[in-house]
Amino acid sequence: MVKMDLNDLVNEKSEWLRGEGPRSDIVMSTRVRLARNLDGYPFFSRAKDEQRKNVLEKLVSVFKKNDLLKDAALIRIKDISEVDREFLVERHLMSQEHAVCVERKGLVVGKGEILSIMINEEDHLRMQILRSALNIREAWTAIDALDTSLGKSLTFAYSNRFGYLTACPTNTGTGLRASVMLHLPALEMTGQIEKVYEAISKLGLTIRGFYGEGSEAAGNFFQISNQVALGHSEGDILDNLERVINRTISREEQTRGYLIDKKKRETQDGIFRSYGTLKSARIITSRETIKLLSAVRLGVDLGIISGIDTSSLNEILLLMHPAHLQKINSKQLSSHERDIKRADMIRGKIGGGN
Amino acid sequence: MVKMDLNDLVNEKSEWLRGEGPRSDIVMSTRVRLARNLDGYPFFSRAKDEQRKNVLEKLVSVFKKNDLLKDAALIRIKDISEVDREFLVERHLMSQEHAVCVERKGLVVGKGEILSIMINEEDHLRMQILRSALNIREAWTAIDALDTSLGKSLTFAYSNRFGYLTACPTNTGTGLRASVMLHLPALEMTGQIEKVYEAISKLGLTIRGFYGEGSEAAGNFFQISNQVALGHSEGDILDNLERVINRTISREEQTRGYLIDKKKRETQDGIFRSYGTLKSARIITSRETIKLLSAVRLGVDLGIISGIDTSSLNEILLLMHPAHLQKINSKQLSSHERDIKRADMIRGKIGGGN
Repeated sequence: MVKMDLNDLVNEKSEWLRGEGPRSDIVMSTRVRLARNLDGYPFFSRAKDEQRKNVLEKLVSVFKKNDLLKDAALIRIKDISEVDREFLVERHLMSQEHAVCVERKGLVVGKGEILSIMINEEDHLRMQILRSALNIREAWTAIDALDTSLGKSLTFAYSNRFGYLTACPTNTGTGLRASVMLHLPALEMTGQIEKVYEAISKLGLTIRGFYGEGSEAAGNFFQISNQVALGHSEGDILDNLERVINRTISREEQTRGYLIDKKKRETQDGIFRSYGTLKSARIITSRETIKLLSAVRLGVDLGIISGIDTSSLNEILLLMHPAHLQKINSKQLSSHERDIKRADMIRGKIGGGN
Repeated sequence: MVKMDLNDLVNEKSEWLRGEGPRSDIVMSTRVRLARNLDGYPFFSRAKDEQRKNVLEKLVSVFKKNDLLKDAALIRIKDISEVDREFLVERHLMSQEHAVCVERKGLVVGKGEILSIMINEEDHLRMQILRSALNIREAWTAIDALDTSLGKSLTFAYSNRFGYLTACPTNTGTGLRASVMLHLPALEMTGQIEKVYEAISKLGLTIRGFYGEGSEAAGNFFQISNQVALGHSEGDILDNLERVINRTISREEQTRGYLIDKKKRETQDGIFRSYGTLKSARIITSRETIKLLSAVRLGVDLGIISGIDTSSLNEILLLMHPAHLQKINSKQLSSHERDIKRADMIRGKIGGGN
């Protein structure tokens, strides 16, 4: 494994925001994760500190010898600052939950931030592959390979009846959660998103907002994932997800066509106003920023706005977060100060001269 | 008198929007008008058509010989289109009331649109001097000279007890109404405008919105005028108005200073967002346009926005009106079409390239 300086990441584009790959006009990113626990150890929430420590050290020693992880870095969460923890959450490398009660918690981050492994989150291991755009199969292949490889050195808690055992029963079975982040402004604008919600929940899938569980949808970004990990093979779960994602993409695509054909002026108006505000604001919240970025992104995808690319918009979408802003400015910032620095950062990236 | 082609006026700057003169940072324009009626004729509302005709023709024949009106043009309202009538209202040359029931109504417009006389509005004569910025005395001198000059050829209805007689008793006495249009964004933003309203009505003055009687204040433009024409000399009326206007200007000025000192970011934010929206919108109502222009105007006055002057903002403030938009485009436009053409016109004047 290698050493990692988190400060080097600040100006790197996070994988989930690379903005390249299949259907990157509608799909932001694909995430596949597997939950695993070590046989013979209690689940994290029930384990004593000594046991937690043993899990962490055992996993670290195995990782160090694993060839797939030779370019990856190990971070002990308690060794890094609060801002750095938040920073890793903002980059989708670990969960919010993993950033609190940090004793005995670890994080492995692979090269290019595609792979990450949380140690001692809810489960002993949470392995994740994150790809930009629509890449379910590719992500699955990578995570499956890692799982197989680690399984040679580790014995995972497994029941012949239930499959892989996990702290929360919703993950038991395959331990698989695959999710795709979609940008669905046209469906939102035309009031069709409610129907999409209904259709998706009938198909055993979940739709969530920008920041995962319990979060509201912000800026028309929606995350669709499988709800159940038990009773279906990994292949079936991924097939079902892929089918629904493709159907949702088609629907968004058709609606974008309708907007351009029938509501061109109104669509342009909303998009250019958002772009104008983004370039002009001197104080701006992250919620408003996401909303405006969503509209501008649609403008780029529809060919209405030129002179800016999705990649720059994604950069803003990452840098606008609290920990990123604080790392860029190398100091703690109050909420109001962040709103100011956020506006300054945005104008620095896409400022229109006023 | 001279001939006038209204189409020649479209691209002229209306006097009230010239944006030059004393305190043009806060004062848009000054208007002074005198109401007069001809002795021996019933008031317009009580007159028969024949009498109305006689009043019109008598006044026209006197005007034609008056030296002060040799460069002025006469318009018979029934001879011009509805759009042209609206156009004259938008240029503050005549009242909305004068644009309906147009038989026997006339309008005299002086060179540069400073002087205008409505014939057979509520009174037989309504003479007006309109000046940009704060010019109460100058306007008074000009209207007084016209009144004196016309009085040599006409006998005005006059009572020794009441003074000049008018159709509405609120104008009886001097027949004088003097009003000043102020731009008071700082007082509005800081919630002080209500106090200004109170103070002003206690002093026997009236405060109104952008379009006079009964209209709401739009875009922080407020019109202050004397309420009573009876029982005070012209000098007293103008002194009182001038005093209150100067006090209101000081108050606005102080509050602008406070905004710059204590709320700089917030003020900049509001101003630049407004500017950004104005440059970006593809559909925009006149109400929103006035609101945004007000903010941008404040930005120019505070030195926050450069690269645009009050004069261009005033041009937009005039051209954005329905009849002006229709004359520019040489066709009738629905409300929705106007909102589109308005946005296009604005971007044409101050567009930021997106």
